[in-house]
Amino acid sequence: MSANAGRRLEERQRGFVLWMTGLPGSGKSTIAALAKKELEEEHGRHVELLDGDEVRKGLSSDLGLSREDREEHARRVSYLAKVLARNGVISIVALISPYRSSREKAKALIGVQDFVEVYVNATLDTCERRDPKGLYAKARRGEITNMTGIQDPYEPPVSPQIMINTDTSTPEESTRELIGMLASRLKKEAEQKPR
Amino acid sequence: MSANAGRRLEERQRGFVLWMTGLPGSGKSTIAALAKKELEEEHGRHVELLDGDEVRKGLSSDLGLSREDREEHARRVSYLAKVLARNGVISIVALISPYRSSREKAKALIGVQDFVEVYVNATLDTCERRDPKGLYAKARRGEITNMTGIQDPYEPPVSPQIMINTDTSTPEESTRELIGMLASRLKKEAEQKPR
Repeated sequence: MSANAGRRLEERQRGFVLWMTGLPGSGKSTIAALAKKELEEEHGRHVELLDGDEVRKGLSSDLGLSREDREEHARRVSYLAKVLARNGVISIVALISPYRSSREKAKALIGVQDFVEVYVNATLDTCERRDPKGLYAKARRGEITNMTGIQDPYEPPVSPQIMINTDTSTPEESTRELIGMLASRLKKEAEQKPR
Repeated sequence: MSANAGRRLEERQRGFVLWMTGLPGSGKSTIAALAKKELEEEHGRHVELLDGDEVRKGLSSDLGLSREDREEHARRVSYLAKVLARNGVISIVALISPYRSSREKAKALIGVQDFVEVYVNATLDTCERRDPKGLYAKARRGEITNMTGIQDPYEPPVSPQIMINTDTSTPEESTRELIGMLASRLKKEAEQKPR
């Protein structure tokens, strides 16, 4: 039984981290939820959706929206994603993560091999028009003062592994594009399985 | 492929949390490490060891040893353990977690069904004689002021699911006892697999 069990563990698929960064309203959470469903139902994977706002409640309730606090929040999320990845889970992080330095630190912590930076790109105009949580409107009225894209900066990725433009694509199209770009990663793992 | 993949996910084993509480030096980390090895090698499980001191560096570097900070630390550890459990991973938490209220909150968050409280019990005398990190000596010299068992209280579990007495047992014996008491949990899962 020991040999079998050992092999069973070896055969398990490798986890990795899809780190989705982008402006509020760019479509991160929507695409993340669709991608999770697809990876679970079509690929039989364990997938954890680490949505910035949700994880904040569980892990970072002591943190605000200052640069320092956003960096610390990203650090905790990357720690969680790393632990999941080494246990075979795919983490989809949907987090504004506006600072390049945060994302670089996340990549370093998680490891280049397991870190996929996905830039969910839409113009500020598009995001503000969507305004799914009404935050842009609040920021324009001065009721919020830390809004990324309005008062706070957003530093776009310089060379993301995947870029999705949601200005013109539907969430379904964007998700198909995203999963398509993961094909070799998912396939390589499937091929390794029988050994 | 979709049907297969879906079934594959269903067949996956359920995660749970072994929450090991006890005085510093009672043997939590030692037994946790041996149990991890056994569960991986003999049972083919994904196991994450959440050692209090280690997780502190990754997730709670902002926290100290006050009651409030210890409770917050335990809260973050339980959040992490919960996320792992729902992805099929067994978490072994090795954390003094001296306050009953912290452990009750962890149980509530993780869910009664997935939470196994393990009391690693040794007398203060035994723990102080072992003093693996030299902390008791420092506390007696007044160089540490928040030492559980010396200045800070330890509230033993009232009805732990598993109690291990390490005063007289070796770590190997204790681990065998622990794994033995998990047998029905591990077996039940193995039986569910073929369906």
